[in-house]
Order: sequence, then structure tokens, then C-alpha cells
Amino acid sequence: MSHKNDDFKSALTVNEGIPQPPSVNLDSVKHFKSKIRKQLSVDEYVSGILQQNRTILSQAITLIESSLPKHQEIAQKIIELCLPHTKDSVRIGITGVPGVGKSSFIESIGMHVTTSGHKLAVLAIDPSSERSGGSILGDKTRMEQLSAHPGAFIRPSPSAGSLGGVARKTRETIYLCEAAGFDVIFIETVGVGQSETAVHSMVDFFLLLMLSGAGDELQGIKRGIMEMADAIAITKSDGSNVDKASRAKSEYQSALHLFPSTDSGWNPKVLTCSAHNNIGIADIWNIIEEYISLTKENGFFKSNRIKQSSYWMHQTIQEGIKSHFYENEKIKNKINSIEKEVLSSKISSFEAAQALLNEYFRKD
Amino acid sequence: MSHKNDDFKSALTVNEGIPQPPSVNLDSVKHFKSKIRKQLSVDEYVSGILQQNRTILSQAITLIESSLPKHQEIAQKIIELCLPHTKDSVRIGITGVPGVGKSSFIESIGMHVTTSGHKLAVLAIDPSSERSGGSILGDKTRMEQLSAHPGAFIRPSPSAGSLGGVARKTRETIYLCEAAGFDVIFIETVGVGQSETAVHSMVDFFLLLMLSGAGDELQGIKRGIMEMADAIAITKSDGSNVDKASRAKSEYQSALHLFPSTDSGWNPKVLTCSAHNNIGIADIWNIIEEYISLTKENGFFKSNRIKQSSYWMHQTIQEGIKSHFYENEKIKNKINSIEKEVLSSKISSFEAAQALLNEYFRKD
Repeated sequence: MSHKNDDFKSALTVNEGIPQPPSVNLDSVKHFKSKIRKQLSVDEYVSGILQQNRTILSQAITLIESSLPKHQEIAQKIIELCLPHTKDSVRIGITGVPGVGKSSFIESIGMHVTTSGHKLAVLAIDPSSERSGGSILGDKTRMEQLSAHPGAFIRPSPSAGSLGGVARKTRETIYLCEAAGFDVIFIETVGVGQSETAVHSMVDFFLLLMLSGAGDELQGIKRGIMEMADAIAITKSDGSNVDKASRAKSEYQSALHLFPSTDSGWNPKVLTCSAHNNIGIADIWNIIEEYISLTKENGFFKSNRIKQSSYWMHQTIQEGIKSHFYENEKIKNKINSIEKEVLSSKISSFEAAQALLNEYFRKD
Repeated sequence: MSHKNDDFKSALTVNEGIPQPPSVNLDSVKHFKSKIRKQLSVDEYVSGILQQNRTILSQAITLIESSLPKHQEIAQKIIELCLPHTKDSVRIGITGVPGVGKSSFIESIGMHVTTSGHKLAVLAIDPSSERSGGSILGDKTRMEQLSAHPGAFIRPSPSAGSLGGVARKTRETIYLCEAAGFDVIFIETVGVGQSETAVHSMVDFFLLLMLSGAGDELQGIKRGIMEMADAIAITKSDGSNVDKASRAKSEYQSALHLFPSTDSGWNPKVLTCSAHNNIGIADIWNIIEEYISLTKENGFFKSNRIKQSSYWMHQTIQEGIKSHFYENEKIKNKINSIEKEVLSSKISSFEAAQALLNEYFRKD
């Protein structure tokens, strides 16, 4: 493959809608601004990523996030060539509602992790189109220390889209980050929607941030999320909050004790912390390391990763055939009226489904 | 439609594999044994069901459970004609691991419910092929009082099959039971598999039975089930167990208190009971009635039923297109080798899925 040729091609494609990284990301790449407009070849992307060039990494992620088929094609090639180079990493899901202090927590534990010599990538899954308080997009400006740290890479959420789409983009972004040498990956989510199951299915460790003393209503966490947690951290345990946080800790501890045991052989832990005073942060990281060594030893770490890869393959297949079905013109014309008959108990759910399936598979 | 003709047809079809109710069910229908061999017309089935003839109800359920297309066709017609006649009912999911005392509990609360003038149908979802201790099939003989009660109808699990298939059969059986005047439906499940989500999606109230004092390991309940429960009943609260049960009650109570609030506006309750001494059983039924009136008042009861109908329509569609995909010859030939490449990190889960989708949708 001649690079000259590729340069020529990329010159031609300059104005064809090459996606740009979200503007908030531009500060960190301002020195390379002139380069962004130039589309690289697949090989250039891959070698840039392997050389840990984070501008090129950013651009490649932007291709992953693009919905243009042309970009998708390049992105898939980049991922394929990067896959053999992904390093051993630890993937950690961090969830908590807006107001729990997620960005301060990530800044604080992120500084601890990078200072200990790790390279940290912070990604987010937030498929809602309204990005209120909790989103990393707004938070990045608040993670001042961490975003300036040479060992950290913070990537705002991809633009809103279906959960399936966003999950795919995030998982592919993980691969590129790992190929670029990041050995700790945080995936942030806001804990109020469907995203947590998706995040749980792509991480090794799932951390739930909770406030002390807030009533159930205020917590706003979706039911079922607590049972996914490998650890719960009670945030803002400082000042007059310390006692409340420690009470909350023992309450959650007894609650978790009543939960059925996990497949990983790990007993979920509850901790308190204060990002503000940098207290308890190192302990949380120690707990994560303890979990990783336990599950690497008992084989769960590896078997879980394998299960996740298989899960995502089948999940993507199922989403593909689903959207093919629901976007079928014959189905679109019929489904609403049939669903109405179901909801008014004229026909059963199963008969309705069967009628639609017959329509879909009928050879015209 | 001439009945003569139907009699003639059914005489012809006698040996064509008309499914028989499982033998355990035969005691209750022994007086009608001669009739079982005769296939009725759709109208005869429907009027038999509406006249609350439980032999005919049993036979119709057997048609639902049959995998023969001919039986499925008749079954669907019966369901369609029964649907407008389904009565107001309360559907209750009851789950708990083998050993928790599920059959004694169902016998005890079932007697309470029928004595209060309700007509009770007890169904089961248990898609596992191994029916050890916990299955209603074995338990029926132990529910001596209840199975002899004229107000109760106990139906053993349909034969093993896919969860989707069993769930469909159970949901369709609910319709027929409701058309036959049963106004309380229990759906039993063993609490260790995937069935609980299915049951949760077809009931109004979800009751979890737990043992006191047993360690996490012994409980064996799958994670996530506790958060589905509208009530937890600690069973076997008798003799030397009373104190332990009451301690377990307060522990679970504080645990539930920490859970996020429910969509129904209901605060899940914890109770203790002894089926053996018939203590606490009426209280559990009161709690269920309280829940039903709360959710009927706040609209959740109806909106949840509508959501469930829609859920099952889409769920059935998705299972239909999934099995069409996975049973496709081209896919069957390729999927294993492609999945191997995913598991050995040669290609990404998404690329693999895309390759299989392309293969599936490719016009030959």
C-alpha cells in the first residue's frame, strides 16, 4: 500500500464529513489541530495508536463513533489490527446518580491510579440525549487535575444514540485504548437507566457510588443495580457527614450480606470515602486490586471476559435482526394495529406475535 | 359446524397423537376418562371452559402444551374465543428454592384463599428437564387437601422445553383458567434459574419464600430476584425456628429498606409464617390484597398488565426471529468457527456479529 496514494485519497476526502472529536476534547489536541483535518490511512491510525499517540487515538475513536459506513469500515479495520496488541487491563464500571460526586471521585481515584504508574482511560456510557448534571461531558472541565495528567485520557460520551449503538462504540473504544497502552479503563454511567446492565457486561469490576443518609427516593438508583455491585462506596464522608456515612456503610454491609453469593466468589464490599479530603480513595483501589487478584486466581476473570465477548457477539446479532424486523415496511404497516388488539385483549400476545412473524417471513 | 362431523373426525384422529394430560393429573379426572380420548370441537372446548368444566380445561391446556401444529392451531382458536371471557383475577408469582417448603406453603395459603371463596389455579414454570425436589409435579401428591378442594385446580409443569416456550404455555394457560372462572392464579417457580424474570413479567404480585438462618450458599436464590419481590415470606417459623425467623425478618426488612423504590409505589414487606401451624398465612394474603387495592387505585395494576402484554408480544417476536436466525443452515455452518475467533481475540464481537448478519441477510 503506497502512502502517497493514501495521502492523495485523504486530500480528496477532506470535505466529506470526516467526524471531528467533540469540541470539548479540542483543548488537549490543540497542538495537532492542523493534523485533524487530514484523514490517515488504516496503517497510520494503527501505528499511531500503538505508539500511544493520543491525538490519533482520539481521531480513531471519532471514526468508531461516526455513523457513516465509510468511517465504520475504516474503524473496523483499525480495531481488527489493534486487537492482537491490546494489553492486560482492568476494566472498571463506575455508576452513581447525578449529585453523588462522581466526577470528584473519578478525579481523586484517577489521580491515585495514575500516580501509582498506571495509564488510565476514562470513558462514559450515557445514551440519553439530555445530558444533565451527571454527564462526563460537563464533568471533564471539573476534572482539571486528571485531564492535565499525562497518564490519563478522558473521552466524553459519544453522541446520543441507541443503547446498543453506544455500548458497541464504548466496547470498541476500550480495545483501542488498551492497544494504546492504557491498562486501567473506567467506564462511567449515571445509574438511572438501562446502561448499567450494558456496562456490567463489559467490565471486570462494578463500583456503585451512593450517598449516605439520602432516602430511597433521593438515591434514584434503578432496582437491580445494587445486586450487580462488587463494591459500594459511600461518597462525601467528610465534615458532619462522617457519622452518617459510617452508619450507611454498616446498613449496606448487612444488606449485601443477605444477597445471594456471586459467581465470582467475591464478597461485595462497602466503603466510605471523601474525594474532597482524599480519604478512603486508596482503600477502594486496594479493594479493586484484591478483587482482580482473587478472580485471576480462581479463573473467574478470564471466564467472565470470554462470556462477555460471546454475550456481545450474540447481543449484536440479536439487535441486528431486531432492527431488520422492526424496520420492515410490512411490519411497520401492521404492528400498531395488531398491538392495539393485544392491549384491548382481543387477541393474545402470542397470536399477535405469530401473525407478525408470518407476515415478516412470508415470501412475496 | 356439524357436531356429527366433528365426532367423525375425532374418531379418526384418536390415534394421531392427541396429547394426554400428564398421568399425575388423571386422578382428578378419572370419572371422565372415557371422554379424554375424544377430541372436541373448538366450540365444545370453549363452552366447556366457560362452564367451568375442569376436565375440558385440562384437555385444552394439554393442547396448549402440545408441539403438534394441528393442536397449536386449535389451541390458538380456543384462546382467542376465551379471551373476551377472562375474569378479573389476581396473578401471583411464588418462588423459592427446593427445601423452602413451597408446596406446604402453597397448600396452606391455597386453602385460605379457597375457603375465603376464591377459585384458585396453581400453575408452574419449571423449564429444567430435571425435576428434583422443588417441582410441583412431585409436590402435587403432597398438596392433598388443596388438590381435593373443589375451588382449586392444580396443574403440573408442562413438559420441559425452552424457557420461552414454557412461558408462552403458562401465559396461555392463565387465560384459559381465567375464562374458567379462576380469580386467583398462583405461578410457582424454583427461584434458581432464568424463569423468575419470565414469571415476574406475567404476574401482578411476586412473592419470594426464604428460609431463616440459612447462609447465602444454602439459599441458592439467583442474584437480582430479591429486588423483584413485592414481599418476602420467611417460612418454617415454628418450634425452635421462631426466633431465627423473626431475626431474619428484621434483617431482610432493613435490607429492603435500602433498595430503590418500586414503580408500583409499594414498599415490599417481609413476613414470617408457618405452614405447618397455619400461622402468618392469612397475613400474607392480607398483604397481597392490600397491594392489589393500592395498585388498582394508583393505576399501576392496569398499566403493568398492559406493559406485560406488550412485553410478551415483542418477546415472542424476538424469540421467533432469533430461532429463525440460529437455525439457518448458513449460520449453523459458520457460527462456531467465528465465535472461536472472537474468543481468541482475533476479531471483535461486533465484527463477528456483522459477518454473520451479512451472511444471513445475503440474497443467494
